[in-house]
Amino acid sequence: MKTPFLDKVNSPADIKNMPLSDLTALAEEIRYGVINHSNLVGGHFGGDLGIVEATIALHYVFNSPKDKFIFDVSHQCYPHKMLTGRKGAFLDPLNHMEITGYTNPNESEHDFFTIGHTSTSVSLACGMAKARDLKGEKYNVVAIIGDGSLSGGEALEGLNNGAVLNSNFIVLVNDNDMCIAPTNGGLYKGLAELRATNGQSDKNIFKAMGYEYAYVEDGNNIEKMIEALEKVKDTNKPTVLHIHTLKGKGFKPAEENKEPYHWIMPGMADGKVYDFGETYDTLMTNYLLEKKKQDNTVIAVSPATPGICAFTPEFRAKMGANYTDVDIAEQHAVGYVSGLAANGAKPVLAIHSSFVQRAYDQLSQDLAINKAPATIIVCWGAIGANDVTHLTIFDIPLIINIPNIVYLAPTDKEEYLAMLDWSVEQTEHPVVIRAPYGAVVSSGQKDTTDYGRLNKSKVTHKGTKIALIGAGNFYHLAKNVHAEIKNKFGIEATLINPVYLSGLDTELLESLKQDHDIVLTFEDGCVAGGYGEKIASFYGATSMKVLNYGAAKEFTDRVSIAELYGRYHLTPELVCADLVKLLK
Amino acid sequence: MKTPFLDKVNSPADIKNMPLSDLTALAEEIRYGVINHSNLVGGHFGGDLGIVEATIALHYVFNSPKDKFIFDVSHQCYPHKMLTGRKGAFLDPLNHMEITGYTNPNESEHDFFTIGHTSTSVSLACGMAKARDLKGEKYNVVAIIGDGSLSGGEALEGLNNGAVLNSNFIVLVNDNDMCIAPTNGGLYKGLAELRATNGQSDKNIFKAMGYEYAYVEDGNNIEKMIEALEKVKDTNKPTVLHIHTLKGKGFKPAEENKEPYHWIMPGMADGKVYDFGETYDTLMTNYLLEKKKQDNTVIAVSPATPGICAFTPEFRAKMGANYTDVDIAEQHAVGYVSGLAANGAKPVLAIHSSFVQRAYDQLSQDLAINKAPATIIVCWGAIGANDVTHLTIFDIPLIINIPNIVYLAPTDKEEYLAMLDWSVEQTEHPVVIRAPYGAVVSSGQKDTTDYGRLNKSKVTHKGTKIALIGAGNFYHLAKNVHAEIKNKFGIEATLINPVYLSGLDTELLESLKQDHDIVLTFEDGCVAGGYGEKIASFYGATSMKVLNYGAAKEFTDRVSIAELYGRYHLTPELVCADLVKLLK
Repeated sequence: MKTPFLDKVNSPADIKNMPLSDLTALAEEIRYGVINHSNLVGGHFGGDLGIVEATIALHYVFNSPKDKFIFDVSHQCYPHKMLTGRKGAFLDPLNHMEITGYTNPNESEHDFFTIGHTSTSVSLACGMAKARDLKGEKYNVVAIIGDGSLSGGEALEGLNNGAVLNSNFIVLVNDNDMCIAPTNGGLYKGLAELRATNGQSDKNIFKAMGYEYAYVEDGNNIEKMIEALEKVKDTNKPTVLHIHTLKGKGFKPAEENKEPYHWIMPGMADGKVYDFGETYDTLMTNYLLEKKKQDNTVIAVSPATPGICAFTPEFRAKMGANYTDVDIAEQHAVGYVSGLAANGAKPVLAIHSSFVQRAYDQLSQDLAINKAPATIIVCWGAIGANDVTHLTIFDIPLIINIPNIVYLAPTDKEEYLAMLDWSVEQTEHPVVIRAPYGAVVSSGQKDTTDYGRLNKSKVTHKGTKIALIGAGNFYHLAKNVHAEIKNKFGIEATLINPVYLSGLDTELLESLKQDHDIVLTFEDGCVAGGYGEKIASFYGATSMKVLNYGAAKEFTDRVSIAELYGRYHLTPELVCADLVKLLK
Repeated sequence: MKTPFLDKVNSPADIKNMPLSDLTALAEEIRYGVINHSNLVGGHFGGDLGIVEATIALHYVFNSPKDKFIFDVSHQCYPHKMLTGRKGAFLDPLNHMEITGYTNPNESEHDFFTIGHTSTSVSLACGMAKARDLKGEKYNVVAIIGDGSLSGGEALEGLNNGAVLNSNFIVLVNDNDMCIAPTNGGLYKGLAELRATNGQSDKNIFKAMGYEYAYVEDGNNIEKMIEALEKVKDTNKPTVLHIHTLKGKGFKPAEENKEPYHWIMPGMADGKVYDFGETYDTLMTNYLLEKKKQDNTVIAVSPATPGICAFTPEFRAKMGANYTDVDIAEQHAVGYVSGLAANGAKPVLAIHSSFVQRAYDQLSQDLAINKAPATIIVCWGAIGANDVTHLTIFDIPLIINIPNIVYLAPTDKEEYLAMLDWSVEQTEHPVVIRAPYGAVVSSGQKDTTDYGRLNKSKVTHKGTKIALIGAGNFYHLAKNVHAEIKNKFGIEATLINPVYLSGLDTELLESLKQDHDIVLTFEDGCVAGGYGEKIASFYGATSMKVLNYGAAKEFTDRVSIAELYGRYHLTPELVCADLVKLLK
């Protein structure tokens, strides 16, 4: 597709004098850029398609970067990127990797934060506005937040505080009546009433907090958006502009079926269908569906991210009242399952490794101190996640240093299912299970382990001199290192599946002192604060040598797994190279 | 004071048939119990005095424990405790220590959770109610939450989800127009309008979320409260009962000056005045006041806990627009200071060690990934906090495993002030400073260290064989151990102030290998995930012996510091006893 209008736009200044007809044509070209880019490399899709016109209007009315736009979660920043000098990445396949999928100050002076978690924009913008006031400067600060992100605690906390700024502070609520999946809570009933009444309903959470309020029913109409933004521009009062847009706008399948087109993988816009067959996620959902047939107190819970763990629309329909999507609300999710478990239900909360960190306090206070026997599945925990805001290496240090929580690391299908069933049925411990990541591995043998014997590791191969402790996903790495050690040094080493990340098998560790000199630990996460350091500390006063393998404490952005594995010595060859020095 | 009415009450059943006049007399006796108990051992005061009548009405109308009361933060559970078999602790000085200051399932079947952090009740109650529905049971579930706790993200997330429970779910909002300090945000302007209009204002956040809503202006009137509760009892819809009570009710000084009587120390009800003179907190506030005179971008921020760090009413008045109390909103507070710093202001957020954990995700995403050069002071971090919900040992593992954050541990007045000034003025790093805890120690010498040379430790005594690394508060412990080692073993050991908790001085650690065999680490917090384990891991492949001292990974409740220090070997004598084995 040719993009004659977008071709003329190198910065927002270039659209200021465009007539409306050109802006409308520009919108279609931007839409093409979204589809083209996402289809090629994967990316956020429906939200970006819906916010095209609003973004054009924002850049038409305001003067970025003097006026500051802060995009919440920045899943909807592609049109903004195209208008601020980064269109090449969307139009030319050779340049697709030049940009990140999120706002990024390193890319452009029009971006102020690297953002990938929801519900932060209001707080960040509130701080920006307050700094402006302290400095005696004048400009607009605009937080742009989707309805889906509004339910997150930080957004609501930010709205509370932003309401009393007593100066220019604009919150653009981009309401497309969807989170990733449909929204559910009372907040959303209120937004629905506002949409149904053209913004006139009394049930207005923004007005209740003291905001000036305006509503635009057709947020995909550039002219109406310009008109509405002109009215709020340079306001001296905290103001909410609530606009209604169509998620997936302009791409029929996405308009009609919003959930699968929130984020797409390469080729999906061309109709490519992905089928991953049996995964650790479907094993879990099938388990829950069977369990629920026998026990109506079993309940699955998601904080608005059902797609990360095969909580599909079909699964949700079958679970019925035994499924709760609490909206984006990780803190509440943990409090909620704590309450469920305390009152005798059997909740299973599935949560992404990078988002579980929003609920540290609730894990500690609501769950762990109260020993609520809920089950939490941490999904996608592994070294190698692509984007800096979505790294999945911190859940181990986050969780294992909280007392009372049992954190299990299954290594295959049978272990995972056995741990899940043990956890759901037991009533003494808060249990977190780190779902294995990647292709399903099966031992083919039913696992009859009693996981109530806390901190009991499994010695899967008894040897001497060197012991390898491989947790979860990295049990398999340890197994490969084990083979390489035999091959390279002729040493029959000991191989251990620690099973528990949250506690040490001190009896086993003591016994290793008899005929081992070296212990290697492997964890598929950040070493700092993690499992391996505890082994090093345990042996601190002895002559046992300990090497800890895992990720370094660093934020990595779009670094390939191969590069990270090389950097962290996570291959049998590199581990053996380290061992050469120790074995001298 | 005699308590003839309370004497007759051993369980809630005993008040069911009391005439109103007796209930009124009972209220005065309960009030006496609150004052008596708090004055003797310290305790939450104003909130408990305000909720006496509402609690009597709750137990009169509902049938606890079949009906479930979940008290938010449980700072207002004393009257509830007195009505549920625990009055002895409030009336008899000999029994004062029999109870905790919070709800506690180990004490009574009328308590369901151990709670001490705010804003959790709605989520916990929501889970309880859902479990009830899954089990097909019938009873009332009532969350009792103060207006101050409402601004916390988890409470708002919980309200959103609770609104669609579609069954019995009652939220009693106890609005005394105060948090610990005055409330500030838009939410509170809305509540004020509801109070001013006898609940009739359109600005109603609860109705906006779909709740049934009722208002009681005189929440200290037992008869009116009974009437209102009778109306909502057995409702089949999520319902908010908003009541207006007087914080400090019945104790004139507390009614007139609410903030200092939120929580009192022993004797304060008798007029005892505490003056701690110069503290690390006043050093910080004096610094900020001076700094603000020179630089209007300096701004102090508190998440509704100004009392923990000498943000007194006088300090706040002097800071004026350069002080923000964001209400209870730790997540927003971190997002807000990130935004402030990103836009060129110099924010200093002071936060309690136990509450900073509510903002882990914001510390990682809003602050650290964005390298926002904000300053965060973690207050009260030390082993020995009394109550299980307020332990102050987890901030080190929480923070030091996040990349990009510089976590500093000053050991005395001069270091603290120098670090504070360096942090406020620098523009490259997110900085957290662990305020020293306890009596002010002064070196008497101005500290001219350049803290921009990250991870550079200070060797304060150069010796051989044994190196002691004492962080922050525990530098002084390490110094005492150093002396005892000299005394006992005749060894002139090396003493190190690591300065940075967030990174190792690897050059120094390498050099220790030459003439040291043993390294001892001391940190005033939990060892698991903390600083010392990193030293153990660093030396893992060497023959250096490492012992890590600090708290064990456990929740302790009301255990004396002396007992904890004994348990964790945190005295020179106990450390030397450990050393005897190593020095053989």
